[in-house]
Amino acid sequence: MSPSKSKPIYFGPPPNVMEGAWFSRHDDLYAADVHRFRGQGISGTSHQGVDSIVASGGYAADEDYGDVIIYTAQGGSPDQDGHITADQQLTDVNEGMLVNYREGLPIRYVRGLGIKRRKATKGYEYRGLYLVEDYWSVRTDRGFLMWQFRLTKSSAVEPWEPSKSGDAAEIRPVTPLEKAAAKYVSVQRRVRNTAEARAVKNLYRNVCQMCSIPLVVDADGGRYSEGAHIHALGRPHNGEDVRSNILCLCPNCHVLFDSGMRLITDDLKVVDAFTQKVLGELHVLPEHRIDPTCVQQHRSRWAARAQGI
Amino acid sequence: MSPSKSKPIYFGPPPNVMEGAWFSRHDDLYAADVHRFRGQGISGTSHQGVDSIVASGGYAADEDYGDVIIYTAQGGSPDQDGHITADQQLTDVNEGMLVNYREGLPIRYVRGLGIKRRKATKGYEYRGLYLVEDYWSVRTDRGFLMWQFRLTKSSAVEPWEPSKSGDAAEIRPVTPLEKAAAKYVSVQRRVRNTAEARAVKNLYRNVCQMCSIPLVVDADGGRYSEGAHIHALGRPHNGEDVRSNILCLCPNCHVLFDSGMRLITDDLKVVDAFTQKVLGELHVLPEHRIDPTCVQQHRSRWAARAQGI
Repeated sequence: MSPSKSKPIYFGPPPNVMEGAWFSRHDDLYAADVHRFRGQGISGTSHQGVDSIVASGGYAADEDYGDVIIYTAQGGSPDQDGHITADQQLTDVNEGMLVNYREGLPIRYVRGLGIKRRKATKGYEYRGLYLVEDYWSVRTDRGFLMWQFRLTKSSAVEPWEPSKSGDAAEIRPVTPLEKAAAKYVSVQRRVRNTAEARAVKNLYRNVCQMCSIPLVVDADGGRYSEGAHIHALGRPHNGEDVRSNILCLCPNCHVLFDSGMRLITDDLKVVDAFTQKVLGELHVLPEHRIDPTCVQQHRSRWAARAQGI
Repeated sequence: MSPSKSKPIYFGPPPNVMEGAWFSRHDDLYAADVHRFRGQGISGTSHQGVDSIVASGGYAADEDYGDVIIYTAQGGSPDQDGHITADQQLTDVNEGMLVNYREGLPIRYVRGLGIKRRKATKGYEYRGLYLVEDYWSVRTDRGFLMWQFRLTKSSAVEPWEPSKSGDAAEIRPVTPLEKAAAKYVSVQRRVRNTAEARAVKNLYRNVCQMCSIPLVVDADGGRYSEGAHIHALGRPHNGEDVRSNILCLCPNCHVLFDSGMRLITDDLKVVDAFTQKVLGELHVLPEHRIDPTCVQQHRSRWAARAQGI
């Protein structure tokens, strides 16, 4: 990517473009500030994150369900049919997608229409803002490491009054486009709760199964915990919302588990994916059966991190 | 409340009632399974949570902004004008609201229309599902302790496939109405992110200002943290989204701080609200000014817990 051709990075909605807007040519996306690069599919950096994507059907593993998009990372030398022929690396813009995930930064998503041989023959549609809600690495049928991201339509990006005080300039300058984006509060993390998750949390009295922290949040001793699905819910994983697939975790351990930094062995030991060291036993009550296929699926979803386990 | 008159508790949308539905009499709400009690304003228990509310203008401090509702706790002997004349206690259904807050349980919210002397003269409107997004305790002008809750319209309550396996019955029985509610995944926690919050988190390199934990979430050393607004954003607090009002915290400390279990003194010491003990100094960099009025506002928002500080 040639920085000389790009405009400054900014996150959030394009200034004057509505969702569903149609563009005849790729260059028109550039002119309208939807996409900062001419002729590139993804815009961003490893440390700032990704601000926009123009999808044109280059990867066979991509899936588009409207509000949910399975997006395959860049690289891995895809062949003509869009199958990767080498391991993908979590570097450059792929690494940038992790910044979006951690920070809840929204991506302007554009879909090429009438794709033929990786070219949009019927123009482009601006689909709106999407969040990186999940990511993972799997081995393809041919044995190559592939990273994927689940993008979810950000109906949660809410208008917000921008800061009025002069305090903003204290730490770093904010560009006019960044100021426009600052009107929007993005959602960094969303913890879902189901009846099944509540049952598991009740069983453990909200004590974390990994670190044993009871997070007391009111004077009456009420505790906070989160239900973590081992085999992830939602496309493309499609894990089940059942108790044998749910752990009771504190928020910190939940973040680590969902990021693949904590893995669980078949004999229910907790492993630090970074050091590959066993941190201890998962605390499991006799009446709570953990489905072994779920912990296996979690490890295969983090294939790149579970290699030694 | 007489349990003999009530139906079983359940969370989620009423089976056959659309948002905006109008009911002539309070009893009709009971018949339609919107509200489980005849003639009561709030339905729930201290340990299960609150499943529905029928608001009829009994408290002067209530505010209704449509998607956001400021709801005053029960008790405190309100006078004819709805001003409390005694301290409110965080017990019974008031305590139940905390379960909703911790668990993300939705409340069916009904508003009485044409309120005259705490009576609805023009029927009732079912307004939909609301989440308890925040709560606090303040001293009123007359010096009484008042607990309040911010209810936010739950556009985030999403349809979800209920569990198909027989596993559900493993731990406790699930009633038919609970099964209906299980279709809905409620949002237990939503972490918002703003450009200002990102700036503060970058400044601290995502290291928690309270417990100094760096939560490493990927193999490249990327860390996760959350921006915590000291003086809370949104109605009725209306704190500002500026850096002097934001802390960089790990998720666990963020939950404790937002629950008022961690308070900050004027000289920036972190206090455990439960034991009233000083846990240590808030870690603050020279270039990050913390606004003293913000930490004061946080303590006054937790008046019931900050009495000794």
